[in-house]
Amino acid sequence: MASNQSPRGNAVIGQSGGPTAVINQSLVGVVEGLRGKPMVEKILGAHHAVAGIVKNDFIELQDLSQDKLDRVAKTPSAALGSSRDKPDADYCKKIFDAFEKNNVRYFFYIGGNDSSDTCRIVQEQAAANNYELHAFHVPKTIDNDLVLNDHTPGFGSAAKFVAQAFMGDNLDNKALPGIKIDVVMGRHAGFLTAASMLGRKYEDDGPHLVYVPEVPFSIEQFQKDVEATYKRLSRCLIAVSEGIHDEHGTPIAVKLAEKDGNVERDAHGNPQLSGTGALGDYLSKAVKEHLGPKTRVRADTFGYLQRCFAGCVSPTDAAEARAAGRCAAELATSGETSGSIAIQRVSDSPYKVEYKHIKLTDVAAKTQVLDKKYIVNDNNISDEFKKYLGPIVGELPDVESLTN
Amino acid sequence: MASNQSPRGNAVIGQSGGPTAVINQSLVGVVEGLRGKPMVEKILGAHHAVAGIVKNDFIELQDLSQDKLDRVAKTPSAALGSSRDKPDADYCKKIFDAFEKNNVRYFFYIGGNDSSDTCRIVQEQAAANNYELHAFHVPKTIDNDLVLNDHTPGFGSAAKFVAQAFMGDNLDNKALPGIKIDVVMGRHAGFLTAASMLGRKYEDDGPHLVYVPEVPFSIEQFQKDVEATYKRLSRCLIAVSEGIHDEHGTPIAVKLAEKDGNVERDAHGNPQLSGTGALGDYLSKAVKEHLGPKTRVRADTFGYLQRCFAGCVSPTDAAEARAAGRCAAELATSGETSGSIAIQRVSDSPYKVEYKHIKLTDVAAKTQVLDKKYIVNDNNISDEFKKYLGPIVGELPDVESLTN
Repeated sequence: MASNQSPRGNAVIGQSGGPTAVINQSLVGVVEGLRGKPMVEKILGAHHAVAGIVKNDFIELQDLSQDKLDRVAKTPSAALGSSRDKPDADYCKKIFDAFEKNNVRYFFYIGGNDSSDTCRIVQEQAAANNYELHAFHVPKTIDNDLVLNDHTPGFGSAAKFVAQAFMGDNLDNKALPGIKIDVVMGRHAGFLTAASMLGRKYEDDGPHLVYVPEVPFSIEQFQKDVEATYKRLSRCLIAVSEGIHDEHGTPIAVKLAEKDGNVERDAHGNPQLSGTGALGDYLSKAVKEHLGPKTRVRADTFGYLQRCFAGCVSPTDAAEARAAGRCAAELATSGETSGSIAIQRVSDSPYKVEYKHIKLTDVAAKTQVLDKKYIVNDNNISDEFKKYLGPIVGELPDVESLTN
Repeated sequence: MASNQSPRGNAVIGQSGGPTAVINQSLVGVVEGLRGKPMVEKILGAHHAVAGIVKNDFIELQDLSQDKLDRVAKTPSAALGSSRDKPDADYCKKIFDAFEKNNVRYFFYIGGNDSSDTCRIVQEQAAANNYELHAFHVPKTIDNDLVLNDHTPGFGSAAKFVAQAFMGDNLDNKALPGIKIDVVMGRHAGFLTAASMLGRKYEDDGPHLVYVPEVPFSIEQFQKDVEATYKRLSRCLIAVSEGIHDEHGTPIAVKLAEKDGNVERDAHGNPQLSGTGALGDYLSKAVKEHLGPKTRVRADTFGYLQRCFAGCVSPTDAAEARAAGRCAAELATSGETSGSIAIQRVSDSPYKVEYKHIKLTDVAAKTQVLDKKYIVNDNNISDEFKKYLGPIVGELPDVESLTN
């Protein structure tokens, strides 16, 4: 991964995949890490990631004021624009053409596991073409599913949103009792859905049931679980991951979309799960069928609000996203030719992390899932998970009960 | 409305209808206004509103510490529990039995227009039964649809949630362009849906289209509007009220539920609109039918998150909800026998309101809607609306663009 010299040239930064509340912190971290480095001339932001690179669509970032950078860093979503393109060899040829034309020697790609794979392909193609390129991936995903990372930038803020949403919804469900189903993002990993439990304070607080993709989903078992909780508490708040799937691994959401002949896939082959209320409505109907049509059942799908809600950011998440970007820039300009940054926890108390340089091939296109030790009865998350999640999310609003 | 003396006895407070982020501020405001008044002995919170009264299910509030009250006030949703029951004459007889048994002479009912009507019925039945009762309604509704009120407690915080959600979603939609439909609460009044525009800063910021119940909805016109914006900006962010209806006044959501044989109604005759993604999915499908199946179209339904999200409160809303509760308590114990509190704006700059004593019959079961002057082209909200809404919501997070 290391070379003894850093070439002179320009840098390109791209933001890829689903945006987060703190992905601009990483962008600004890279810019801050590159500024003042003698070998780096222009810092070019790629408009809409690889899609912008091949169109020579860049935004110059090296002369922005610190104040402007700070304000961009605090803005949710990807300020450069994003893309879900997955470059093949032909696409990469076009990337190199643009890189050569612009004398680009440093490439930073901020994204999740698909994006780290894109970064890997670009870097390997560069090597194959004898094009000297320092290529770094900067981690980002609300799914928290990158291997070798304790957690990933973007997750903490999305988890804060989910936790606060459930705190409010638990109190709403307590005030007007019934069965409430909330569908949370997460294709393969249940971390974000598990975050629904972080704000539980009193013994009867929900979510009372939590379904994650790590456990195959059975609609009959779901109906029985809901019935048991409803009988016990006269209410039931449920967190369900959008990625729940049957015993063959087929997501329930995909089965519903297939019925409508309506399955969309992205360039990475992932079927579309978000942006529809179908899963929530299906589960809601199943509960009514089981407990009777007069049962008060409601379903909400949190959807895209989870990842970019303005004003719901974990300060820890923001600081770590910035530091990860800065770290990648420092490595790339100190002779390292490629890699990714992994956030690893050094201690719980006081909470402390370090930023480790790992290989692109170690992280690319791999998926980390929720540790089984946190999953209780296949339908809940243990309180132990708070020890892991708490410091990543930071302080939650306090709530006080009159009846507990 | 006035009598010269205030009877000696106990007070009952109820929280009714859909909860809000600040309804507990009003509860605490009433408690604070009653404490220390010589004619008031016990302050009883009715567990689940009128449903608790008839079951003699009360929580004593007079001895709670100020610290506990302050923490309850900051907690979203209804700490006493809520109800959607609409008392008829028989139900009221049971309420009087409970009131007599507990020597209740002060009744405070915190809620929206249906709840003010409940308060009116209870008060009229009391008069007919020669039972001396001071009955006050305290306004609360995220719909902002009470007449004679400039705005209502609960609306400002829900509007803040909607505005911040759209700020983030606008940036998300800009990063990964496509068509995005967001369904916002609001049965008859479009105030909350209109709040989607508060965070617009740059010229191309969304929402680009806003559909409120004040304008009859046509799916064909909707398809044309979306197409025009999409051609102009290559993206389109849309705010739609759950209460949009056809030219005959039938909500689109009800027509969809009828197809499923699945229309729920509450005791006030209102059909259920929230808690399902059906409207968003219907609109999404209509856009795809019009613009082609490959068009990136997503729909989110904000659902119950809007009214009780923990940690998204307008400070102005919180303070006004508290003051409205306190005002009702002061009036009831200073000889006034019934009424409601209306928040009226005295000036915009500096922003100033007053709390006016109005008659129950002036507000009960009436609905205020969005002034037509704010509605542009039947599909958007004018920037003038910010002058009205801004002070109610308070400061929003700042966002900064790299491309504008």
